[in-house]
Amino acid sequence: MKKLEKIIERIVDYKYETIRIKGHSINPDDFTIIAGPCTIENRESLEEIALHLNSIGINFMRGGAYKLRTSPQDFAGLGSIAFDWLGTISEKYNLVTVSEITDSSHLDEMMEKVDILLVGTRNMLNYPLLTQIGKSGKPVILKRGMSSTVEEWLLASEYILSEGNSRLIYCERGIRTFDSITRNTYDISAIPLLRKYIPFPIIGDPSHATGLRELIKPVSLATVAAGASGLLIEAHPTPELVKVDSRQTIDLKTLTEINQLSGEIKKILY
Amino acid sequence: MKKLEKIIERIVDYKYETIRIKGHSINPDDFTIIAGPCTIENRESLEEIALHLNSIGINFMRGGAYKLRTSPQDFAGLGSIAFDWLGTISEKYNLVTVSEITDSSHLDEMMEKVDILLVGTRNMLNYPLLTQIGKSGKPVILKRGMSSTVEEWLLASEYILSEGNSRLIYCERGIRTFDSITRNTYDISAIPLLRKYIPFPIIGDPSHATGLRELIKPVSLATVAAGASGLLIEAHPTPELVKVDSRQTIDLKTLTEINQLSGEIKKILY
Amino acid sequence: MKKLEKIIERIVDYKYETIRIKGHSINPDDFTIIAGPCTIENRESLEEIALHLNSIGINFMRGGAYKLRTSPQDFAGLGSIAFDWLGTISEKYNLVTVSEITDSSHLDEMMEKVDILLVGTRNMLNYPLLTQIGKSGKPVILKRGMSSTVEEWLLASEYILSEGNSRLIYCERGIRTFDSITRNTYDISAIPLLRKYIPFPIIGDPSHATGLRELIKPVSLATVAAGASGLLIEAHPTPELVKVDSRQTIDLKTLTEINQLSGEIKKILY
Amino acid sequence: MKKLEKIIERIVDYKYETIRIKGHSINPDDFTIIAGPCTIENRESLEEIALHLNSIGINFMRGGAYKLRTSPQDFAGLGSIAFDWLGTISEKYNLVTVSEITDSSHLDEMMEKVDILLVGTRNMLNYPLLTQIGKSGKPVILKRGMSSTVEEWLLASEYILSEGNSRLIYCERGIRTFDSITRNTYDISAIPLLRKYIPFPIIGDPSHATGLRELIKPVSLATVAAGASGLLIEAHPTPELVKVDSRQTIDLKTLTEINQLSGEIKKILY
Repeated sequence: MKKLEKIIERIVDYKYETIRIKGHSINPDDFTIIAGPCTIENRESLEEIALHLNSIGINFMRGGAYKLRTSPQDFAGLGSIAFDWLGTISEKYNLVTVSEITDSSHLDEMMEKVDILLVGTRNMLNYPLLTQIGKSGKPVILKRGMSSTVEEWLLASEYILSEGNSRLIYCERGIRTFDSITRNTYDISAIPLLRKYIPFPIIGDPSHATGLRELIKPVSLATVAAGASGLLIEAHPTPELVKVDSRQTIDLKTLTEINQLSGEIKKILY
Repeated sequence: MKKLEKIIERIVDYKYETIRIKGHSINPDDFTIIAGPCTIENRESLEEIALHLNSIGINFMRGGAYKLRTSPQDFAGLGSIAFDWLGTISEKYNLVTVSEITDSSHLDEMMEKVDILLVGTRNMLNYPLLTQIGKSGKPVILKRGMSSTVEEWLLASEYILSEGNSRLIYCERGIRTFDSITRNTYDISAIPLLRKYIPFPIIGDPSHATGLRELIKPVSLATVAAGASGLLIEAHPTPELVKVDSRQTIDLKTLTEINQLSGEIKKILY
Repeated sequence: MKKLEKIIERIVDYKYETIRIKGHSINPDDFTIIAGPCTIENRESLEEIALHLNSIGINFMRGGAYKLRTSPQDFAGLGSIAFDWLGTISEKYNLVTVSEITDSSHLDEMMEKVDILLVGTRNMLNYPLLTQIGKSGKPVILKRGMSSTVEEWLLASEYILSEGNSRLIYCERGIRTFDSITRNTYDISAIPLLRKYIPFPIIGDPSHATGLRELIKPVSLATVAAGASGLLIEAHPTPELVKVDSRQTIDLKTLTEINQLSGEIKKILY
Repeated sequence: MKKLEKIIERIVDYKYETIRIKGHSINPDDFTIIAGPCTIENRESLEEIALHLNSIGINFMRGGAYKLRTSPQDFAGLGSIAFDWLGTISEKYNLVTVSEITDSSHLDEMMEKVDILLVGTRNMLNYPLLTQIGKSGKPVILKRGMSSTVEEWLLASEYILSEGNSRLIYCERGIRTFDSITRNTYDISAIPLLRKYIPFPIIGDPSHATGLRELIKPVSLATVAAGASGLLIEAHPTPELVKVDSRQTIDLKTLTEINQLSGEIKKILY
């Protein structure tokens, strides 16, 4: 554990710089839900989601414009136009926006049009991208690589931190194992582990962790009870109709329940 | 999923027969904590644990007499004498006892001296042993194999169920993955998955799942929030002094906290 | 590596006792092919195989009588009668027999009727069984557990060795990983690793490693080139008709080719 | 297997375009060794290697200028100057050069200064990079992702192929599993699998597969015997002195032996 202890020591030294945008903030000890569509498909449903988030007190909205797909033949997002919708709508409902950055060539555009960058599991090992994000100073959520150890995840985060960007959130989203009954195996223990040793927010992504709509609610509540700083959830008014990750997207009613129950569990823990 | 659906259909048909012993019972929708030492080392500490369990309303006590150790040079339990202590002490405090069966040659003795058999992760694939337990009709907790899929786990349980023994509890205890920062990777999603489709109790073992004392509490609470029917926890008055699994054993104060917080979370869920 | 070095030191000290039966022997530096049906299904095909082995100079025949099947509804072997056929036929063709022991209750019968015991992947962690085999002194092949590290495999072997039985062969048969395009992932590097540090024979099982008939020949040759002491192969006159593991069973013509090419590669290596 | 069959069908249709550079070529049925330092550290040792390769008939030299390191604090290569040395020296000894591309910003420089691009395991999922390489038309070796299935590897390759670049070589380099006694677990079966179904060269990288110098020779020979189209090996005059991957780098004498024995095994196979 010697090597790990040194890494932890360094990361503690970087100190988390509170992400504060549009009057909202994210802190390790608070609980923040970030919800929205996997991929932005049209303006109407995005607005419907924004309205709902606003109505139940969720201040952070996710929405993908560029997607990395395992096959080049799959739908890969609408690009720039999606950012424009995201911008206008989030303005209207005073929501902070989160969107995945898939390539460093999108960085300039996203610096302007998105509030928080999301580095997906496939890019946790893309150190040149992480370095550029570090230099940009932009708030960022760093997902764990699907086959990365916690130690490698922390080391990867140093590519961002060592460039002077401490507005960083870690996101556990499940790792790859021999069982594929769920999409990934959610490493719930990583959450209290990071909470204990690292003074940065750590959130969980039950959508990618399970890949199964019917498990999102219990796994979300487990994430809260484990001490997470928040959740990243794929939600949509008509989950069965979305083009990407439909099977793991929940409807807005379930999101409301998760939001409410999370609050109640959180109260018990403190 | 076709094959899995058929397995689930068969298991649903077996129907859970409520485990009811010494006035206590275990049900899928209730929440039952089973706690105690990994391995019984002496009479005094066992009594101290029993007294504590009784005082906080925990009615089920675990305690190992025969252990499977990775190396033949490690301490492998006290054998019969431990069962005698377990019997006397549990009688006194009206506790239901749970102990691991490591070999079919111990079955006769354990039929008499122990209330619930525990099949450990190494024996989930020991089908001759499972068949004998099936024939015995004895209540049994079947841990998931450390590298078994959920499907294989369900199939293994049929070796017990198909012999007519439906007093069966499933126990998730973590699976083996590429990361060893925790002892295993706890497959928390397996809990709501089984709860949804299988009408048998499913409990979680945060001790073996994490291997780290400091993570037992948050991971226990996550297990409750995920909808589990209970917990199997290694606890001891002086965890740092026990010979086996010391690093993952919690003290009695932490056990009390888990017991209390579990109850509060459980109340919210329903 | 400190812990591993100590284990290796102990195992080196046990010293391999050459397995010598019916005039045939197995040595680390030689190359021995053991072939035959996964499960013995009838006398006729077993004799056809024996005749073929004898004609191409293979002196070791495998054949299962008791099988461990993932589901209790699958065919689990013919039991005793299969041993009788194996005994008579092997006598006639002067073949050494190898059969899997699935439960310690079969040990007495197998001591008499089989030449070499095979401990399958599911039983590598069945320490009580290993201890009994150790006491029996019977030659044994210990397969690696499907999710066991090399270190754990070596430790398990000590349950046999420490009882005074040094007529032991290790068998690599693939481990469980996230990819299931082949049945397991064959850990070919384990072969030169054990050859370098452990003075016991180490053989490979390409049948279970790949699960795909069309890969058995190249993977067998790779095993030879990696320095293995031999091969364990499932072969049958009509592979497509066998009840168990049909998809990974090769025909006798392919076996002949493997036997011949192995000899040629072996010559180059020395 | 239906989905896999369709992928294979598409890849077969792309048809391999023989890589032919400086009078040397790579073909699926031939056997090509690519050797050299992990990272180019100085001009002298690079020249010594080049001279040696030339003297034993190896025509392809690898050498890294930009490295992806798990920690930002590790040595990450000399950059441009290393390409200049590689260019001059390879010219002198008529060697084809291979170097890893770690970021698309290096593509222009590498188009000019390197003969074959190497996409490392961390970038197999970097689809924007693969797309650009596809557009460039440059010969490329695509390593398998450390936790990618064969199916995902084939899909990733379509990001290159579908852009019209069919000068593609696949490279198996080991996958991540629960055992870390070797650096990775070499999936030797993937080699005959691709050889059987895909008409592109598939080579093996025993250096990253094992991470252990003493296993490179046997695992290299296993790769040949499994039917590979070649090997990618880290070799250096003084392996114990190199800064990166020292533990898995072989000396030039061992390389000579591998080269010679590979030729002899190859002859037997045909």
